[in-house]
Amino acid sequence: MAQHTNRRVILKERATGLPKPELFEVVEDDAPSPGDGEILINNIYVSADPGMKGWISVARNYASVETGTTMHAFSVGVAVESNHPDVQEGDVVAANTGWAEYAVADPTLPTFRKVDPEDAPISTALGILGINGFTAYCGLLNIGQPQAGDTVVVSTAAGAVGSAVGQIAKIKGCRTVGIAGGAEKSALCTDVFGYDAVIDYKATDDLESALREVCPDGINVYYDNVGGETLDIVLGQVALHGRVVICGTAATDAWIPQPSGLRPERNLLVNRIRMEGFLTFDFVDQYAEAHAQLSTWVREGKIAYREDVAEGLENAPAALAGLYEGRNMGRQLVRVRPDPFA
Amino acid sequence: MAQHTNRRVILKERATGLPKPELFEVVEDDAPSPGDGEILINNIYVSADPGMKGWISVARNYASVETGTTMHAFSVGVAVESNHPDVQEGDVVAANTGWAEYAVADPTLPTFRKVDPEDAPISTALGILGINGFTAYCGLLNIGQPQAGDTVVVSTAAGAVGSAVGQIAKIKGCRTVGIAGGAEKSALCTDVFGYDAVIDYKATDDLESALREVCPDGINVYYDNVGGETLDIVLGQVALHGRVVICGTAATDAWIPQPSGLRPERNLLVNRIRMEGFLTFDFVDQYAEAHAQLSTWVREGKIAYREDVAEGLENAPAALAGLYEGRNMGRQLVRVRPDPFA
Repeated sequence: MAQHTNRRVILKERATGLPKPELFEVVEDDAPSPGDGEILINNIYVSADPGMKGWISVARNYASVETGTTMHAFSVGVAVESNHPDVQEGDVVAANTGWAEYAVADPTLPTFRKVDPEDAPISTALGILGINGFTAYCGLLNIGQPQAGDTVVVSTAAGAVGSAVGQIAKIKGCRTVGIAGGAEKSALCTDVFGYDAVIDYKATDDLESALREVCPDGINVYYDNVGGETLDIVLGQVALHGRVVICGTAATDAWIPQPSGLRPERNLLVNRIRMEGFLTFDFVDQYAEAHAQLSTWVREGKIAYREDVAEGLENAPAALAGLYEGRNMGRQLVRVRPDPFA
Repeated sequence: MAQHTNRRVILKERATGLPKPELFEVVEDDAPSPGDGEILINNIYVSADPGMKGWISVARNYASVETGTTMHAFSVGVAVESNHPDVQEGDVVAANTGWAEYAVADPTLPTFRKVDPEDAPISTALGILGINGFTAYCGLLNIGQPQAGDTVVVSTAAGAVGSAVGQIAKIKGCRTVGIAGGAEKSALCTDVFGYDAVIDYKATDDLESALREVCPDGINVYYDNVGGETLDIVLGQVALHGRVVICGTAATDAWIPQPSGLRPERNLLVNRIRMEGFLTFDFVDQYAEAHAQLSTWVREGKIAYREDVAEGLENAPAALAGLYEGRNMGRQLVRVRPDPFA
């Protein structure tokens, strides 16, 4: 078998705050060999995810990355060696191989999936037809339980997850209100993602009033990707029996020491609100259904998506850091090499 | 019809903090006349409830009492006039007539119920076989969803609701841990209410460690009657997929301005915790079932209860104030007149 020189990005140091590029390092070595049942992948795209803040934090997490090892990331690439009967060399596969040109994938993991490049651009396997779409779909439907006529508020409304949430809620007959940062993202919300209203939180110094104005009857579902003060303010306007879906905490840089905010319990009590956190992997059983449904909606033009692609593996750390500054316009991907299917 | 001189306690002024006796006043006038379908009740017991803090707060609430009107309260008494076909003079009825010797009850309200004095002491209609028992039963089973083997933590564990929660959880096969204030209440928890462990929060300056010691595998259900710092501490120890039942916020004196505490969203996210508030009236459909089940358990000796009875309607405001100082030992009632069934 051919020996491949490999480049990958390792974590040098765990983070006490936001992921800074200096925490990472590009190393070069030989590509690993796939074991029994495993597959060697040559990646085309890898992801930069908001959740990575938690994966590399000094505070332990469900998906902690150890220092000295390849940074975890979602990936899509081509199988170059396969010891698995269902995967042939040349197959396109989505996996969880990390920031690396070459990496071994374990097909028994729930994120592993063969991708049909005829179906949609293969990059969507890391976005609307992958982790972000599934997160939006499963979190909104299982926990948010949107009913036709509900007012659904979404934070990071133009983001990869938020934009899908808004559009799924719309398909379910809800009125959708996005919270986004900046004029460009706000325009995306209304013009591309079909939100009924949008609040540019960077352009208002009174989010509470702005929200009250566009949600005069209260908020039935809040799909929250940020937490922090935005959550505090929204909670005060959640309607009777409202649902708050805790999907991410992007607004808080560090959790040690645990920061303070407004006490939520009286709002939860008086308005009988349910607030619940979830991880997308809690719903792997529903991924096939989510994929089928989202593919259909994308094909029918009912769901739009945006991708923001950085060039070159060495730029993955900077792309990640940019997420927390809100620099990305859509799903943040990193192109490891030219996409032969584009 | 006989005209009855009536004494009742009215709210003079809404509260900005805890209910102080000075906010109330005893007035004397003639008893009202029941309208069509209504009943005039001569009360025997009325209640002093932790929730009353919210009812009289300047912050509006689901059950706000207007100044100049009789203080809302649960009550049990005897029908002295009835314009309703199902109720005869002399029947014992539980209702929601307020702090008054005589008051008109509307039998269409969900709190109205005929009480069989042969069944149990009639005072239980305001406690374990009434609002407190129903609150414990419906909140724990619907929202807490205890499974056999779960560790269930209860705050105000010796209180009217808490003690019932602990005992119901125990019947459901859970391990129960109570948090109570003071040696006497802690002893009640273990000796009378059968908790597997109890923490006297007044006797420890490190609730976090004390809790970790008795809940080494984390907390599956937290039934919370207090909120505040106790909730902050417990949330950090709730296990994967745990449930937090928000039943009351007794630890917080005032909600204007909204006080601060630790941000909960990361704990909710990482451990996929559900935190949900409820009011007992959300579950009126289940009251008949709750009454039947709790009556059986009380008769079988599986559920014990305690009552703390103040003498005389004029002492209702002081009894209420005492609740927030933790002075009561069991369900706080006020005896309006001698109980002819005791």
